[in-house]
Amino acid sequence: MCEANAYFIAGDKEELILESVDKVLPQEDGLLLEDIFGHRKMVRARIKELSLVEHKIYLEKIDER
Amino acid sequence: MCEANAYFIAGDKEELILESVDKVLPQEDGLLLEDIFGHRKMVRARIKELSLVEHKIYLEKIDER
Repeated sequence: MCEANAYFIAGDKEELILESVDKVLPQEDGLLLEDIFGHRKMVRARIKELSLVEHKIYLEKIDER
Repeated sequence: MCEANAYFIAGDKEELILESVDKVLPQEDGLLLEDIFGHRKMVRARIKELSLVEHKIYLEKIDER
């Protein structure tokens, strides 16, 4: 299976947000993540980098207004 | 290996842009795609959806200004 783990990244710190992510759907105010079990999580973030061979999705938080 | 293929999507049409994509790096004016062989391609597009279990990255074109 080729799911990936999603992390918030800030500087050199990684914070695991959701494991086994299958789908990522950008929305107006963030990203909707869905794992392989169908669990969904909405995050106020944008994609900073995908590294698929490493199974990693790096996100950066969107500042609250 | 868990690379994915990148497609432009418009309506129900898919147009293959790059196969075996490992890295996706959002830039100011588009996305930098890098395949598993290190070949890079810059596209004026944003991510519309990731479907990692299907190995697909769906992109939508950014309108030229």
